[in-house]
Amino acid sequence: MTEINITELTLYCKAFSGLTVEREAILKEIAEELTPHLSRVTDAFYTELDKIDKAKPFLNGKSEGLKKTHEAWLKGLFTNDFDDEYAKFLYHVGDVHVKIELPVEFMAGAMTQIQRNLTPILFELFGNDPERLIAIMEAIIAALGFSLQIMQESYQSSTLVTELDKFLKITGMSRILFNNLAKAYSL
Amino acid sequence: MTEINITELTLYCKAFSGLTVEREAILKEIAEELTPHLSRVTDAFYTELDKIDKAKPFLNGKSEGLKKTHEAWLKGLFTNDFDDEYAKFLYHVGDVHVKIELPVEFMAGAMTQIQRNLTPILFELFGNDPERLIAIMEAIIAALGFSLQIMQESYQSSTLVTELDKFLKITGMSRILFNNLAKAYSL
Repeated sequence: MTEINITELTLYCKAFSGLTVEREAILKEIAEELTPHLSRVTDAFYTELDKIDKAKPFLNGKSEGLKKTHEAWLKGLFTNDFDDEYAKFLYHVGDVHVKIELPVEFMAGAMTQIQRNLTPILFELFGNDPERLIAIMEAIIAALGFSLQIMQESYQSSTLVTELDKFLKITGMSRILFNNLAKAYSL
Repeated sequence: MTEINITELTLYCKAFSGLTVEREAILKEIAEELTPHLSRVTDAFYTELDKIDKAKPFLNGKSEGLKKTHEAWLKGLFTNDFDDEYAKFLYHVGDVHVKIELPVEFMAGAMTQIQRNLTPILFELFGNDPERLIAIMEAIIAALGFSLQIMQESYQSSTLVTELDKFLKITGMSRILFNNLAKAYSL
């Protein structure tokens, strides 16, 4: 993997997704009230995935373990700091997704399902104060967007590395020869 | 570009994002009431992008034209059918994004901004009926997720094609020789 500046990436994705300090604080404020309901979002997620043929190879016999990981991550969204360590973790997840050959559109699809299944729960819990509910929803949209952006950045760079490896294997070319040709080509 | 089955891709992404027939109908139902407010979402989008350094090369001198395209697309989300033609258009957009070298995370970032900036407007217009508002939000989340999934599918496949082209140019290898080696390698 190429060297990346995780602090820079974190700041950039926060600015892009709108994950401000105020919104990070809102997520922590609602953690206690929301957390007991997050298993419903995870359950809905795997119920929906079960109906997608392309998801089957990634679920077979692994659903229970994946559910636990999913719910833990979802809870973390409302308890962890959105710092370099979290960004590094997300970056690693994007990379793992390439290694297990998870199709790229699964990440956006997953965020869509989470966002959609969270919506009625948020109304149920915070619907009596629309102004606060708007702020909560904006914070969640930003946090999910931030997470998706970082995963996709790493998915993309990991894909490029994997593709180059494939070319080199297929052609039997050494990396040194390729790098030299690339240098000569860019002159 | 490799041959893709657009009907299959449309059905798959609809199932994944949860874009049901009922939700497609809801989007059209609210079109008339929502449309006059969509320029606020577009304006907010470009105001936010203006603050992102990495976005500057894509905006320079093009903001006005881009705003028109953005608003028209946004309006279309509530008036067009989510059929093969729309999917083909999105697929083309993903491909164009690779050609203009738009970073991959811009697409997820854009959807995040739209979703976030739509939220207060939806409460303003439909907040008096929370049950309907939930259904409207779920429909919008699904439609944006569907659009993002298709764009990313094509961004990914277009990236792979572009990488192969680059590799062939750098190495001076013909496509026929590469294809033959690839066949031999996979035996």
